[in-house]
Amino acid sequence: MIKVGVVGGTGYTGVELLRLLAAHPEVEVTAITSRGEAGTAVAKLFPSLRNHYDLAFTDPAGTDLSSCQCVFFATPNGVAMGQARALLDKGVKVIDFSADFRIQDIPTWERWYKVKHADPALVKEAVYGLPEVNRERVRNARLIANPGCYATAVQLALLPLVETHHVDHASLVADAKSGVSGAGRKAEVDILFSEASDNFKAYALAGHRHHPEIVQGLSTASGKAIGLTFVPHLVPMVRGILATVYARITNETDFQALFEKRFAGEPFVDVLPPGSQPETRWVRGSNHVRIALHRPLGGNTLVVVAVEDNLVKGAAGQAVQNMNIAFGFDETLGLGQVPLLP
Amino acid sequence: MIKVGVVGGTGYTGVELLRLLAAHPEVEVTAITSRGEAGTAVAKLFPSLRNHYDLAFTDPAGTDLSSCQCVFFATPNGVAMGQARALLDKGVKVIDFSADFRIQDIPTWERWYKVKHADPALVKEAVYGLPEVNRERVRNARLIANPGCYATAVQLALLPLVETHHVDHASLVADAKSGVSGAGRKAEVDILFSEASDNFKAYALAGHRHHPEIVQGLSTASGKAIGLTFVPHLVPMVRGILATVYARITNETDFQALFEKRFAGEPFVDVLPPGSQPETRWVRGSNHVRIALHRPLGGNTLVVVAVEDNLVKGAAGQAVQNMNIAFGFDETLGLGQVPLLP
Amino acid sequence: MIKVGVVGGTGYTGVELLRLLAAHPEVEVTAITSRGEAGTAVAKLFPSLRNHYDLAFTDPAGTDLSSCQCVFFATPNGVAMGQARALLDKGVKVIDFSADFRIQDIPTWERWYKVKHADPALVKEAVYGLPEVNRERVRNARLIANPGCYATAVQLALLPLVETHHVDHASLVADAKSGVSGAGRKAEVDILFSEASDNFKAYALAGHRHHPEIVQGLSTASGKAIGLTFVPHLVPMVRGILATVYARITNETDFQALFEKRFAGEPFVDVLPPGSQPETRWVRGSNHVRIALHRPLGGNTLVVVAVEDNLVKGAAGQAVQNMNIAFGFDETLGLGQVPLLP
Amino acid sequence: MIKVGVVGGTGYTGVELLRLLAAHPEVEVTAITSRGEAGTAVAKLFPSLRNHYDLAFTDPAGTDLSSCQCVFFATPNGVAMGQARALLDKGVKVIDFSADFRIQDIPTWERWYKVKHADPALVKEAVYGLPEVNRERVRNARLIANPGCYATAVQLALLPLVETHHVDHASLVADAKSGVSGAGRKAEVDILFSEASDNFKAYALAGHRHHPEIVQGLSTASGKAIGLTFVPHLVPMVRGILATVYARITNETDFQALFEKRFAGEPFVDVLPPGSQPETRWVRGSNHVRIALHRPLGGNTLVVVAVEDNLVKGAAGQAVQNMNIAFGFDETLGLGQVPLLP
Repeated sequence: MIKVGVVGGTGYTGVELLRLLAAHPEVEVTAITSRGEAGTAVAKLFPSLRNHYDLAFTDPAGTDLSSCQCVFFATPNGVAMGQARALLDKGVKVIDFSADFRIQDIPTWERWYKVKHADPALVKEAVYGLPEVNRERVRNARLIANPGCYATAVQLALLPLVETHHVDHASLVADAKSGVSGAGRKAEVDILFSEASDNFKAYALAGHRHHPEIVQGLSTASGKAIGLTFVPHLVPMVRGILATVYARITNETDFQALFEKRFAGEPFVDVLPPGSQPETRWVRGSNHVRIALHRPLGGNTLVVVAVEDNLVKGAAGQAVQNMNIAFGFDETLGLGQVPLLP
Repeated sequence: MIKVGVVGGTGYTGVELLRLLAAHPEVEVTAITSRGEAGTAVAKLFPSLRNHYDLAFTDPAGTDLSSCQCVFFATPNGVAMGQARALLDKGVKVIDFSADFRIQDIPTWERWYKVKHADPALVKEAVYGLPEVNRERVRNARLIANPGCYATAVQLALLPLVETHHVDHASLVADAKSGVSGAGRKAEVDILFSEASDNFKAYALAGHRHHPEIVQGLSTASGKAIGLTFVPHLVPMVRGILATVYARITNETDFQALFEKRFAGEPFVDVLPPGSQPETRWVRGSNHVRIALHRPLGGNTLVVVAVEDNLVKGAAGQAVQNMNIAFGFDETLGLGQVPLLP
Repeated sequence: MIKVGVVGGTGYTGVELLRLLAAHPEVEVTAITSRGEAGTAVAKLFPSLRNHYDLAFTDPAGTDLSSCQCVFFATPNGVAMGQARALLDKGVKVIDFSADFRIQDIPTWERWYKVKHADPALVKEAVYGLPEVNRERVRNARLIANPGCYATAVQLALLPLVETHHVDHASLVADAKSGVSGAGRKAEVDILFSEASDNFKAYALAGHRHHPEIVQGLSTASGKAIGLTFVPHLVPMVRGILATVYARITNETDFQALFEKRFAGEPFVDVLPPGSQPETRWVRGSNHVRIALHRPLGGNTLVVVAVEDNLVKGAAGQAVQNMNIAFGFDETLGLGQVPLLP
Repeated sequence: MIKVGVVGGTGYTGVELLRLLAAHPEVEVTAITSRGEAGTAVAKLFPSLRNHYDLAFTDPAGTDLSSCQCVFFATPNGVAMGQARALLDKGVKVIDFSADFRIQDIPTWERWYKVKHADPALVKEAVYGLPEVNRERVRNARLIANPGCYATAVQLALLPLVETHHVDHASLVADAKSGVSGAGRKAEVDILFSEASDNFKAYALAGHRHHPEIVQGLSTASGKAIGLTFVPHLVPMVRGILATVYARITNETDFQALFEKRFAGEPFVDVLPPGSQPETRWVRGSNHVRIALHRPLGGNTLVVVAVEDNLVKGAAGQAVQNMNIAFGFDETLGLGQVPLLP
């Protein structure tokens, strides 16, 4: 049993983390901080958690998290980079949901996130928490940069391809679609019900922040340059990401076998049988990514379709998976949720 | 550990039952029948269940369920009444999701359901499975009539009132709203996405089948006649029922205290703090009913708002709760799901 | 052809008004003001209006509206009461979407709206713009208080009943359900897509601001006190209100005939044939209210179901209807939109 | 004023056609047939049309459509090919919503639609009704094959590119997303609310019937072979298609200018200003296609985003546009609807 703290528990990734930790047999959540909601009972803000949490949110300034073994930052970009070091120095492991420690190249990070990085040295130490790539490094990490939601789905859909030489690495296309919860629990007009419901749009067409994160991961896996066009879209649903990835085949192989082999033994990556057409609800509330491969009309374009729950494998679930690895628990502990369907 | 069979596992209450049983430590599901899907792997029809079920649907005719200790009928009205006796005779406990055994007065049942009842004698023995009323009888029941979804929410909202004498029992109004999954997984135009989405309507305005079921329960609890106007509505959401119940106060009391006392110790009825405005997502995927009491503008009309997940407390979850009681398990076993929010 | 100005055109009632006025043959919109969007082209903020409006929003301070014959205030409560008089003094007719001039009793208004009224004298002159009640007064009005969305639906559902003596006026119940656009285009967490979608709730259970407005209208129509319990609910759809009204019958009559007679000749009130179960999409985008009458199980409770589009008959459409009356145009001019279904 | 008949008016394209024709000043609808609903008043099946249509559906067998000048077939594939000739022989112009006359190559058509074509000779005469390509031929056509919904959006997004030589014609990708109304008003489980809501999926991954239609149009425009990967997706919204098209630039040009020039003067194609991110609701209920061009991160992939209302420009609106052209009316007559937003 470990003591766990959550910094910034009022967003969607925060409440999802609390949902998952409530079912985790080796975790006791001892503190949940929030600047705006300090003093409010967690179960008052999120009545779905009634009977599961007696805690109230506390002010971050007055909360000592050093008695925790693990602290999750479910905060906006720019928070964890200023606070992680103090916790690490006291022997606390830190898992950060934000982008603060995801990009190894500081100038790239600063260009995309438009602030100066507060702790570049820590970035070097941070482990990018995609277990399917970095499991061994996560095991010994003090500081884990939990991947972005799109970045998780797109990388898992492309890893077997960029690690080998069967498609053109220079002309990859990832057309991704996300439910609105991916935009967070922020009071913004664009994500009002009356704006986003019964509607569909592409966004970030000039370029999205997950682009450098995906390219970093794929380039590392590939060992060479990656050319990726990534366009995200907003779907009128709450949870779920579906990524449709297009790759030009340069060198035939049995792609189904390639994917099955690459992800054999992975507890949360499910390569579906040939012909499957995955739906986001197949993973709603669970930590699984499900992937299907297609060759429309038998052409030379490979289409990979991957679905995940953006709040689970795309955020809080993957964070728990990383915590399990880093603390030597069974990797699937507390992550046995069956997807909610319908 | 008991062996469990499911008859008719292809509807929404069926797949929800399978989701819940997958997490139940004392249950092994050994057979799931379906006339239409015999031979199909359960996890092929419902990929959300991949990794949880290796079974395929089997044809009911060729499936021997007598080795099960408990059989659930997740079938349309009219099926269980013809098949329950044979199983009971072999010592199997039967929990029926349909209306076949809910109404004690056979002519009333036949008038509403428009067929002749196949086994009126069994109706007498059947126990109406609302644990908050009939817990002790459920404990020893062989045959449990699992309540209807609306009937569960409306009865729980009204029980403390009809058991006492503080409101006019003759002029109760229950304005109920249900997500579309309540209509089942049937190929019907009315419940197509393009018909039901971005739309709202009342239905069954001439009278709904849950009316006699609710009135039977409330009359029994009250010991006198009940006058109830019940109007259901269709909400463009998948799961959830919210019932808004109006009662004319005839005799003041502390209604909050009345409800809290009535449901003290109930594991799945949550009387919310004064001022709460419950939302269906506060119980999405969980077996809880949450109830709030209001006096708009301090008037003499009491408004009770109750929310449940129609597929859980309104169907499969309540069935598992009944099974737990009938087999002497902890009543909450396998029912610890935290609601999915958002 | 008249010149029309719109104050505060960036909300949902504003953009809906612009949609309707674009199709109105006797109107030229010459100014649309907005503090926040001054300088922005109207068709940039609302690309649905491309090709229909060349105007940009202008700053209210620098915009002279006195050359308009008619000015609509599509502003939050508290704006029109400070600005209407200056326009009226210059001979401009004013139609206010807000609640500023709806309630004749100033203390009541101030209690509900929590500010001091800026121009109580004008309230006396203002005509409450429900044409089905006040058509003749609207004809000669300088200042029209456009009714609230719930208030329109509930009053039309109850008028024939409170004007006669067939139901108990003291125990009326209006259970109303609205799409989320009724909450406006405001950056608030409660109406985010991820909060309101796949969810249902009651709100304002302590009392809603439309309550005094409805009671004022019904009391006036009835000539005696009205006892009304009014509970609004939030439906996960964009547009539409459905009100389910319950009245205890005290004195039998042919209610269908009563309603048909009351609304005979009304261009926008459609009393549906017996047995109809109205849906909000039957009026989506149109100025019609459609009403059906029911007697569930033949009991002594009359159930009236009324549907309207909250942004049309509940706001902008009714405002155009009032403008048509006040300027002597055909009352239906520019309001011939066929509802969008599906 | 012309007399118009509608064959098969009970689907979504049928009711949408009726909505549009109700507002058309030069059309009198004299017959609407339906096998299943013969005898039912049109306004009973579709109460949104109350006050607009007095007609009842009539049985096709007993309905003489030869007194109409124009007959629309809003029927499933396979109906019009058997009935069009008889009407043409009597001088009636026919506009077919189905795929029966869209594909010039009969074996290709038969392979995709899996039946023998009943009237191959008529296919030769039929004009493919995409006015932006075939306006002059439509003007004199007797038989117009109204394009498919996806086919309209994708062709308009690609025409300026395939007519010139700035992108690789062999590696085009069209990732298209459609609202559920595109699947029609058919009682099928896959498009139930509870299946399609709060969910997202790709479908027809092996190949979709609009592929040969799109390729035929683009090849003709290009004069050479086209390589297109086309993947459709199902969006939980009622109306709307958004197509995201990816093209590899081989030869730089000013693409914004290229599109603006190509569609200059087109009444229903709106090339948006640079930087626009179109949303389906910008065209909800209107006949416009709106198109935006992007170069994510300034790379060498051109991304074209096109939105249309699948039931209007993707079906009934385009049919009315074709009728207007074929009968010499102003092309925009009856098509002035302002999109419904929100």
